[in-house]
Amino acid sequence: MISRLRDAQVTIVGLGLMGSSLAGALRGRCHAVVGVTRRHETVDVALARNLIDWGTTDMAEGVRAADVVVLATPVRVILRQLAGIGQLLREGCLLMDVGSTKAQITAEMARLPDHVQPLGGHPMCGKEVSGVEAADPALYQGRTFILAPLARTSEAALALGCELAETIGARPLVLEPERQDYLVATVSHLPYLLACALVATADVSTSADPAAWEIVAGGFRDTSRVAGSDVTMMLDILMTNQAKVLGALEVFQGQLGELARQIEVADEDALRTKLNGIRAERLRMFP
Amino acid sequence: MISRLRDAQVTIVGLGLMGSSLAGALRGRCHAVVGVTRRHETVDVALARNLIDWGTTDMAEGVRAADVVVLATPVRVILRQLAGIGQLLREGCLLMDVGSTKAQITAEMARLPDHVQPLGGHPMCGKEVSGVEAADPALYQGRTFILAPLARTSEAALALGCELAETIGARPLVLEPERQDYLVATVSHLPYLLACALVATADVSTSADPAAWEIVAGGFRDTSRVAGSDVTMMLDILMTNQAKVLGALEVFQGQLGELARQIEVADEDALRTKLNGIRAERLRMFP
Repeated sequence: MISRLRDAQVTIVGLGLMGSSLAGALRGRCHAVVGVTRRHETVDVALARNLIDWGTTDMAEGVRAADVVVLATPVRVILRQLAGIGQLLREGCLLMDVGSTKAQITAEMARLPDHVQPLGGHPMCGKEVSGVEAADPALYQGRTFILAPLARTSEAALALGCELAETIGARPLVLEPERQDYLVATVSHLPYLLACALVATADVSTSADPAAWEIVAGGFRDTSRVAGSDVTMMLDILMTNQAKVLGALEVFQGQLGELARQIEVADEDALRTKLNGIRAERLRMFP
Repeated sequence: MISRLRDAQVTIVGLGLMGSSLAGALRGRCHAVVGVTRRHETVDVALARNLIDWGTTDMAEGVRAADVVVLATPVRVILRQLAGIGQLLREGCLLMDVGSTKAQITAEMARLPDHVQPLGGHPMCGKEVSGVEAADPALYQGRTFILAPLARTSEAALALGCELAETIGARPLVLEPERQDYLVATVSHLPYLLACALVATADVSTSADPAAWEIVAGGFRDTSRVAGSDVTMMLDILMTNQAKVLGALEVFQGQLGELARQIEVADEDALRTKLNGIRAERLRMFP
């Protein structure tokens, strides 16, 4: 295994928002950044925007000489790619991903041939825009980059993964896959579903009234923002974290139901205590 | 009634975030801006920050010579103030408010003495900070300012209300009180409750895990932002719009329940169709 990122060829598979932003952030900080995509046009855009050194639509060609390969496709595409990519990789290659759920991916990674070093990854960032056109090399700056090593992952491989995260300005955080999936179900996947249900509610309740769109204020805009996320990406996330997402939804529905009951019976003392506690908690989270 | 705002003494009752920001936005654009508050210290801060021409803790003194009075206190304080303020106001005085619910306030305004011109108001803006220290004269810039005239409100009074909204950079929008309360229940009060229930869920589910706070990403931050709103203000809003808020909650719970069921039975076709429709709707709302 290569010891320093600056000597490495890093191949990024998938040049959507996450992959192309990663490419741009790594460009010039390692020996070469290579992009693998389905479409030639995407390679052309990535080259024109100086995000990659070279690119290809041929997976075998793109990963053959790679010291580090990062899968940056939707979660279930990653799962399919993991089934076939092992034999294409050189001895000691670090194989990472940037998918939002980790239990299924690391389980699949455990089946890779022994000569590959697997490491699950999940950078906590994103945008409501997709594709190479939206590439933003600063996307990872200041964000947490979760790393989920397997039992078989060597210390050197984990150290190289940490170096990659730090090189793009992120803060590596090592988490066990089940624990990461539990936490992101609440802090990431649940907010997406709430935003979606809020937009659907506004659509059902108020879309017949043209005044509704004139009065949507900052609260609605912010609360609904993530409803604009890429649907294929989110569907893969929800379907590979089904039980934990449903668990988070159930806790949420209980909390919202309690607020609704307190409003219904006008139990103002209980409501005030609850809302004050929540406000204090929010201020603790984001001082 | 005075015909032009620039000749008017405008008295603002309550120098919290909304009132003090309004004062700052009007200062220099009318004859005088007067502040009425409970505490002398607030008058001192407002004077030091050049938000008012003069201030007092004596309601009668502050409103006696006013051509326009704006009540900028929590909704149920406005309701109490409306019961006694009429006799303190001069002939033809325009009496407005900036409370977030309008049905109960305009019903109370209907009982004002005939020499007063009442006009309900609700600017669609706010912040998660409170008090005169947070005053921001640009707060109203580009925002919709809902105006809810009563049957007895004269055209001249409505025109003066519109001029006030435009003077502070807002867009006036005339709405019937019940219709405004219905719409804001969905686009403003519901997002607040979702943000609160989300923070409560994170607190219940993940607060024992220190990693949770390292991974909260932009989605959670944005979706939970309004949970930091002033609790007394929000409690008054919820309690004076109880039925419509509960109606909006019910529609939301139905929408969220439908998403949960589709995830549970893994009905991906239905889920994809639904999420795509929601994403398109969100993009239409905020292009």
